[in-house]
Amino acid sequence: MSVDAVGTTRRGRGARKAIRQTRDISMLPALKRGIPLTEPMSAERIAQIDNASMDILEQVGVVFRDPIALEDWRRAGADVRGETVHLDRALVRSLIQSIPSSFTYHARNPANNLPFGKDHAIFVPMTGAPFVRDLDDVRRNPTLEDLANFHKLSHMSPALHSSAHHIVEPYDHPISQRHLRITYSSMKHSDKTFMGMTTSPRNAQDVLEMSALLFGEDFMQTHPVVTGNINGNSPLVWDETMLGALRAFGQYNQPVLCSPFVLGGANTPASVAPTVAQLNAEALSALAYSQVVRKGMPAIYGHYLATVSMKSGAPMAGTPEISLMNMMIGQMARFYDVPWRTSNTLGGSKTFDAQAGYESASTMMAVLMSGANYIWHSAGWNEAGMHCSMAKFVVDAEQCAMGYRMAQGVNWDDFEDAMQAVRDVGPGGHYLGHPHTLENFQRAFFMPELFDNNSIEQWQAEGSVEITERALKQVRQMLGEYEEPKLDAGVNDALLDYIARREREIPAADALNQSF
Amino acid sequence: MSVDAVGTTRRGRGARKAIRQTRDISMLPALKRGIPLTEPMSAERIAQIDNASMDILEQVGVVFRDPIALEDWRRAGADVRGETVHLDRALVRSLIQSIPSSFTYHARNPANNLPFGKDHAIFVPMTGAPFVRDLDDVRRNPTLEDLANFHKLSHMSPALHSSAHHIVEPYDHPISQRHLRITYSSMKHSDKTFMGMTTSPRNAQDVLEMSALLFGEDFMQTHPVVTGNINGNSPLVWDETMLGALRAFGQYNQPVLCSPFVLGGANTPASVAPTVAQLNAEALSALAYSQVVRKGMPAIYGHYLATVSMKSGAPMAGTPEISLMNMMIGQMARFYDVPWRTSNTLGGSKTFDAQAGYESASTMMAVLMSGANYIWHSAGWNEAGMHCSMAKFVVDAEQCAMGYRMAQGVNWDDFEDAMQAVRDVGPGGHYLGHPHTLENFQRAFFMPELFDNNSIEQWQAEGSVEITERALKQVRQMLGEYEEPKLDAGVNDALLDYIARREREIPAADALNQSF
Repeated sequence: MSVDAVGTTRRGRGARKAIRQTRDISMLPALKRGIPLTEPMSAERIAQIDNASMDILEQVGVVFRDPIALEDWRRAGADVRGETVHLDRALVRSLIQSIPSSFTYHARNPANNLPFGKDHAIFVPMTGAPFVRDLDDVRRNPTLEDLANFHKLSHMSPALHSSAHHIVEPYDHPISQRHLRITYSSMKHSDKTFMGMTTSPRNAQDVLEMSALLFGEDFMQTHPVVTGNINGNSPLVWDETMLGALRAFGQYNQPVLCSPFVLGGANTPASVAPTVAQLNAEALSALAYSQVVRKGMPAIYGHYLATVSMKSGAPMAGTPEISLMNMMIGQMARFYDVPWRTSNTLGGSKTFDAQAGYESASTMMAVLMSGANYIWHSAGWNEAGMHCSMAKFVVDAEQCAMGYRMAQGVNWDDFEDAMQAVRDVGPGGHYLGHPHTLENFQRAFFMPELFDNNSIEQWQAEGSVEITERALKQVRQMLGEYEEPKLDAGVNDALLDYIARREREIPAADALNQSF
Repeated sequence: MSVDAVGTTRRGRGARKAIRQTRDISMLPALKRGIPLTEPMSAERIAQIDNASMDILEQVGVVFRDPIALEDWRRAGADVRGETVHLDRALVRSLIQSIPSSFTYHARNPANNLPFGKDHAIFVPMTGAPFVRDLDDVRRNPTLEDLANFHKLSHMSPALHSSAHHIVEPYDHPISQRHLRITYSSMKHSDKTFMGMTTSPRNAQDVLEMSALLFGEDFMQTHPVVTGNINGNSPLVWDETMLGALRAFGQYNQPVLCSPFVLGGANTPASVAPTVAQLNAEALSALAYSQVVRKGMPAIYGHYLATVSMKSGAPMAGTPEISLMNMMIGQMARFYDVPWRTSNTLGGSKTFDAQAGYESASTMMAVLMSGANYIWHSAGWNEAGMHCSMAKFVVDAEQCAMGYRMAQGVNWDDFEDAMQAVRDVGPGGHYLGHPHTLENFQRAFFMPELFDNNSIEQWQAEGSVEITERALKQVRQMLGEYEEPKLDAGVNDALLDYIARREREIPAADALNQSF
């Protein structure tokens, strides 16, 4: 199989044109919020969390399981004892001051560039699913073709601002080489922003070199083009893989998400405010380290956050405590004046059922009220991240568009015209034929495509089609209508050459089918 | 059939005790919010809405299709032209000043009394469904037994603060007499607060006389015990049925919800802020009239609010504009210092699927952020109110408990102990056995009973049970465990005598089976 054929459905241009519809796939600009933030903490409570986190950093310390990081910290003036780094609060405060509070996140199509940070937010699809619920709602291991399909759907969903990276894990390609194909698929199938794999420092290096082929290395040194996620091991540990990937991103001055991985009650105290205090200490330690690596490199306050059922040990989503913690974490990130990343539309259900709906919508509302800048896992996540559902992917993407509309706030520009309409219509009338209605109805009230609000009689006459089936029908339509935003031919060749060379260099022995 | 047998499942006390479990059915107190309100309007925007609403009341006027109300308005100094009442803003402001901004809503069990208004909120189940999705998830016309079952579930759901009234329409009893049986069922099967039917002034009178048998007429004159809903016909019309019922409630000094019935875009302008301006004018006109009827009677700013799909004409729920309008309406009600009622967990789906989950959770989050005091339709609503689902009822009730927890805000009382736990556990440890965890895990993180967060392997091993089936299993368990909070025998006899007398007086000819 040639690299070029990976994940690309071949079809004649005529056939594609014939089924093309009028779907508007124009990306929405980065969300600029027009409603107030929900801030449950007073300035005193923020200071209490800050103080507790700084106490943790000073007294308990953070383990950096990485000789280079320990040496870096020594040079930076930290108190290093074995693998444990004790960080003085003055040092932490001084270091994080150089983190950019906002920047422009560049896409290969400049029309898709995104203002990032402050009161802007972007929606990024889920990543990392070891299973897909596919076009037939069958749960199975994903392939590169599945991944390509998700990248296409991301490209065509107006409220998604990124094609991310490994939305699903492509099990039909050797694990050691997978990051190359994943990165290429993100770049090829969408001209929105994307993410870079951080599964090892060398893999990160590959992603960054491929990004340099696409954007130019000089450009990258002054323009963010790819985000990498750096997970922590709560409580209070960062490992060599993640720290090495962070340094790779630092070399190219690219943004990293510094994300403690929190299972509240298992790797944090069983309590909301203390969990935030620990998470905050963890995030600060990595944010500070990013500035040791490269002063001024973009870094984003991050976290993955579930609460754990004390009955079963299972991670839970959409719980009231996760909502509260998101609100609080948003306040802490703003207190330090750094952008922040959270997770969206998390579902813990095995199927795309009502549970998934409640959990996803609760999460999205909380995240929007909290003012997150980088709203990750915004489409497809179910079964606690074990699968990405094609049906849920497009429903979530539409929910993002609805959440976007809410967070934009209220439009007032037709107010006086509408008041005239009230006078025209008068008591007991209706507005359906009024000029103000005819002029405004298209934009006035969001009409979700994937929700059925018809009468039961009409719904039954149309075959009693449930939401999963409706959503999968839309997925098929979208994939049929998809048109590739072609890479520049020279860049494409350079990327394919890079992949071919690296695949010759990287042993593939450990690989194919191992995880099926 | 004797009245006493209506809706009551007969079973020996021994059998009931044998299956009794440890379910805690204690009602949660009225929610007292501990997180900030979401207020998208500045003081200037609030003034703009207020001014526009007052312009409508002065210039367009409101139709009161009711000779008594027109005469009342004339006496109160309004400018009455035919059926249209033009209300000067000074008159409106003066009238609504006597509306109590808070009061205690009394239940027959004083332990279930509720502080009402200001920063308190209560959850009330849905009402008015012409269909039930029953214990087998079959959609059919409901009976008095179904209604009794919903009243029992309301009684046993900690986060529900009311048994409401006709949660479902009992089609097995003559429509003309139904309100008597509905009221008795509310009173008998639960000792929480309840609602009173307003389907005619005479029906309201019956409800109030039955309430007087339960609470005493003198007590009612100074204590709210039953709420009645008064729907408006948007745009800008109130009818004789509703106004007559309002006056009946006024005679007993009982609270009325003054609820414009808004289908945004059909009976209001196709725009968010203008819809709020019209709805606000409508609510103000009824609130003001309540104080003409009886100065100082409790009245609640209300509304039913859907947006209309301009493609199909169908009402939609969970849309971004409904969320925004709830936030704005909350601001207006607080501006006038009156309590307000909204609607919760609205779903438009025909089944209990993901759509119902997204819509319900989006609505609940918006309503909680908006600070509503009387959160109606909080359990069971689906298919745009056409059916009440037993499965959804208990899931929604659990969601109310989760929303309640979120809106309470953050608990700080164990903060220092938990910081000691962080020091004890240290980097790389875990908290599962720590004394702080053992002491706090039960209350720390909400563990929903009806959501399955186990692994797919465990879920499959347990039979791949989906949420509807899980919820219906819980409904059966709850109904099996139900114990009636017995009415005082004398009161019960008086209520049954009242019903028997009124059923002799009211013709039943129009009735049975007519709507099946």
